[in-house]
Amino acid sequence: MTEMLKQIPYWEYLTEDEKKRAAESAYIRHYVTGEQMYGPYVECVGMIHVLKGETRAYLLSDEGREVTLFRVVQGDNCIISASCVLAQISFEAHMEASEDSDILIIPVELFGEFCEKNVYVRCFAYELATTRFSSVVAVMEQTLFSRLDKRLAGCLLRLYKKTGDTEIRLTQEQLAGQVNSVRETVGRMLKRFAAEGMIEIHRGGVMLKNLKKLEETAR
Amino acid sequence: MTEMLKQIPYWEYLTEDEKKRAAESAYIRHYVTGEQMYGPYVECVGMIHVLKGETRAYLLSDEGREVTLFRVVQGDNCIISASCVLAQISFEAHMEASEDSDILIIPVELFGEFCEKNVYVRCFAYELATTRFSSVVAVMEQTLFSRLDKRLAGCLLRLYKKTGDTEIRLTQEQLAGQVNSVRETVGRMLKRFAAEGMIEIHRGGVMLKNLKKLEETAR
Repeated sequence: MTEMLKQIPYWEYLTEDEKKRAAESAYIRHYVTGEQMYGPYVECVGMIHVLKGETRAYLLSDEGREVTLFRVVQGDNCIISASCVLAQISFEAHMEASEDSDILIIPVELFGEFCEKNVYVRCFAYELATTRFSSVVAVMEQTLFSRLDKRLAGCLLRLYKKTGDTEIRLTQEQLAGQVNSVRETVGRMLKRFAAEGMIEIHRGGVMLKNLKKLEETAR
Repeated sequence: MTEMLKQIPYWEYLTEDEKKRAAESAYIRHYVTGEQMYGPYVECVGMIHVLKGETRAYLLSDEGREVTLFRVVQGDNCIISASCVLAQISFEAHMEASEDSDILIIPVELFGEFCEKNVYVRCFAYELATTRFSSVVAVMEQTLFSRLDKRLAGCLLRLYKKTGDTEIRLTQEQLAGQVNSVRETVGRMLKRFAAEGMIEIHRGGVMLKNLKKLEETAR
């Protein structure tokens, strides 16, 4: 476990005693795709380090609309799942495993104690939150200011580049979640894309037909 | 100046030498309402402490649409105007004096040095950024999830409570800025409010006619 913990960026700031206690309390948990990791009804689990996979933090409206705030990829840490430790984080974010993930967890009680007693760990936690702050503002700018056709085309291209497959197997609901819109609006936009020959709409997904035109739209 | 500086929450974290240098370099600047304090074309001024008045941080789209991120009131500090110090803040926010304001400023070079060498000051800066993070997420939730009629009615009531005057002297453009919308949409909504007897639309402002109904709409 100690070898694994050495990957954590704040490891070097811990005292010998804190390192020992971290090694005793830390554990690895596997989450399956879509599994809730944190939210109003899920306990504050602790400070997480993504060993494998990807997690996603998002807001959820009363009507079930989702807005992705940021993603935490392999090698990254996230304070949201331990946000009960920082009184300054007052919003109710959700976090889920967006892929099958192995997560190294420092339990919240211990991480809270580190933050309280060790100014370097506390500083790291706030620094990490500040980094996420910038991502969230970027999402906000994109969502509020950028046009949906641009966002949707960009999203389809990203999904294609990730898998190399022109068949995107996501429902309109899921695509709407990706671009922070609603199903109806995304459905209309997809129909427009199809009419322009950029995509074909299939059951449970879309097939990309004209990558060049999609790239022009995304610009 | 030293007496004034004692109001600053991170003052106690400074060493004697740092305190001396802060007292030598700090200065007070007066900003008039609407004056730019920070933005892509305004120099990174430093860490600010609002002695009197109010400042506002906001995003500005290419089309000139504004979204208020947060307000910094009397007694509060703000890191945005010194965000060049923190590499983690990567977005381009603007800041203006939303009222005539007296601002105590620690120049950016000195504050940057404090952040670099003094972990307690650095921690304070990140903590402050984390606090703003929460405000920004709250704005984002409100803007994305809450209905405009609710927001606009709430905004009119807040303005009324601030001045005690039922005549709100703001243009539709300015009201749109307050509720993070655009003039056209706010104009339509105000007409609806007028048709329902809640307000009267005047030149350069609106007059509140039915506070009870406005309160119901804001709920």
